[in-house]
Amino acid sequence: MNDTHTESEAQWRDEISHRLEALPGPDEEVYAAARARQKTLTKPPGALGRLEDLACWLAGWQGRDVPRLENVETLVFAGNHGVTAQGVSPYPASVTAQMVENFKSGGAAICQLCEAYGASLSVVALDLERPTADMTLEPAMSADECRDAIARGARAVKPGRDVLLLGEMGIGNTTSAAALCCALLGGAAEDWTGPGTGLDAPGVARKAEVVGRALGLHGGHCADPFEALRRLGGRELAAITGAILEARAQSIPVLLDGYVCCAAALVLEKAKAGALDHCLAGHLSAEPAHGRLLAALGKTPVADLGMRLGEGTGASIALGILRGAVAAHNGMATFADAGIDDRE
Amino acid sequence: MNDTHTESEAQWRDEISHRLEALPGPDEEVYAAARARQKTLTKPPGALGRLEDLACWLAGWQGRDVPRLENVETLVFAGNHGVTAQGVSPYPASVTAQMVENFKSGGAAICQLCEAYGASLSVVALDLERPTADMTLEPAMSADECRDAIARGARAVKPGRDVLLLGEMGIGNTTSAAALCCALLGGAAEDWTGPGTGLDAPGVARKAEVVGRALGLHGGHCADPFEALRRLGGRELAAITGAILEARAQSIPVLLDGYVCCAAALVLEKAKAGALDHCLAGHLSAEPAHGRLLAALGKTPVADLGMRLGEGTGASIALGILRGAVAAHNGMATFADAGIDDRE
Repeated sequence: MNDTHTESEAQWRDEISHRLEALPGPDEEVYAAARARQKTLTKPPGALGRLEDLACWLAGWQGRDVPRLENVETLVFAGNHGVTAQGVSPYPASVTAQMVENFKSGGAAICQLCEAYGASLSVVALDLERPTADMTLEPAMSADECRDAIARGARAVKPGRDVLLLGEMGIGNTTSAAALCCALLGGAAEDWTGPGTGLDAPGVARKAEVVGRALGLHGGHCADPFEALRRLGGRELAAITGAILEARAQSIPVLLDGYVCCAAALVLEKAKAGALDHCLAGHLSAEPAHGRLLAALGKTPVADLGMRLGEGTGASIALGILRGAVAAHNGMATFADAGIDDRE
Repeated sequence: MNDTHTESEAQWRDEISHRLEALPGPDEEVYAAARARQKTLTKPPGALGRLEDLACWLAGWQGRDVPRLENVETLVFAGNHGVTAQGVSPYPASVTAQMVENFKSGGAAICQLCEAYGASLSVVALDLERPTADMTLEPAMSADECRDAIARGARAVKPGRDVLLLGEMGIGNTTSAAALCCALLGGAAEDWTGPGTGLDAPGVARKAEVVGRALGLHGGHCADPFEALRRLGGRELAAITGAILEARAQSIPVLLDGYVCCAAALVLEKAKAGALDHCLAGHLSAEPAHGRLLAALGKTPVADLGMRLGEGTGASIALGILRGAVAAHNGMATFADAGIDDRE
């Protein structure tokens, strides 16, 4: 590392620290007004359960008395992983680029779900022809590469979004997610390793051994969560981290997807507790460690449908539910409006 | 009961028995083709979890290779309950009719959710000015009244629906549901009694005592599930029972709502195991006994959002999820279409 590099890395660190210290919060006044409105609507108080919480959360983060979902985007980041050389996925790495084409031509699940639930879809392919290094042998990314991916994630967040959905694609990336969770949350490699796209039991054991080797090499250098991201992550994970932070700076509420997306989010939560307050866990993935990760993040998933596809598909289901929450919040009559007798 | 009445009751019994013996099933060929299609779509097999099951279930019951959700209706049945005289609800019985007006003018939660998720809404108010009798003193309905309500529920099911959502409104009706579940599934009154629209703990205890008294009077006469419905149910519950059976006769798939709706469905399942195969449990209600009831019905709820409003609101959330399932099933590319490498 030359001096110039060191200086720019130090500058970057300062900037990130500054941003993490100055995270905007929700509009508490709007949030309180939304809560008060819910109590006047023609239903027993609390009877819409989580739908009430979702509408109020959205109102608070949007700072709008009438929350809206008109301008919604799903950002899918794609990256390739050198660790695939270790045989951690049943699919060849070529699938990452092929799926990016599938996203663009409308054939992937996330394309259909975005259309069903009213979100635009943007795909950011991050140097697919240049996979990250094999983390069992060296850090997955150089400092420059990691910062670049974080910056590209941040730049992908356009102003004015009512809500942002985040997803990913990258053959091998549940291995990165497992290593990152293990480094930042402790426990054994086995605790964080699952079948991903569909490994059998011996495949999962092999993958856990790979995660264990990566931890053996890098585990002692992961006290800093961004350093853990650089050593064990991947470009799409780094981009998600950058996008979440940028969304917070712009007070844009975020719907997280599954295991890989939440592992990227974990980097921010570890860097600054509360950094994910503008984020909802869209769903509970079937990837076994996702529940443990959500518990560590203090997040209750909106949906639980045994999905494990990534791409933002779980987040999109939460968007569909959020649409109902917003419709009820904005459109229902109050007891007074409707002339309905309240509790005796 | 005069002879004419007895004869028509016997005829009706025969007819119901005949219908229950001749329940149509799903189109197994279409179902198998849908399962096969899922395996060809550009995702790891099974990665869309429950969404895959939902799409295949719908295809099978619709008998359509390309399942659709163009013609969707929510039927909300409303009834009044004499048992409200026992102080089982924090709301006055006048609210039932007032909420029916609110349904008609678009101010209720179900109106907004139907609009959000693309369903039409029909409300059937069942003799609101004539509440059922107080079940702690006599059967809630005469045989004529109960058969009439079942028939009105059946008549409300119009042909050609792609899916039907069922909901209800009726101050006091979680008390009926609790009594019906207790009579048909056993256990103590307390096991089936919950806060409904929002009773406090002493209120729930009082309500359980009311349920217990009703069981004391009728429990010995409830071996026949339709007799249990007549003695402990209400018009809106009987109408839901009739609607579910009619939907089955027309092979229309049904989304059930919460505790009251599922208690009405239980009557059919008890009369004939498998009578609810065309029904999905839309959600798990916050009403504590709903989970126990769903377990007895062998149903896994689609959503779990702590809702407890009735009206079909939980079913509507499931409709939203079903839309995503159908969009993915119908619109995704296959591995062959997209030229994507399959598992190695």
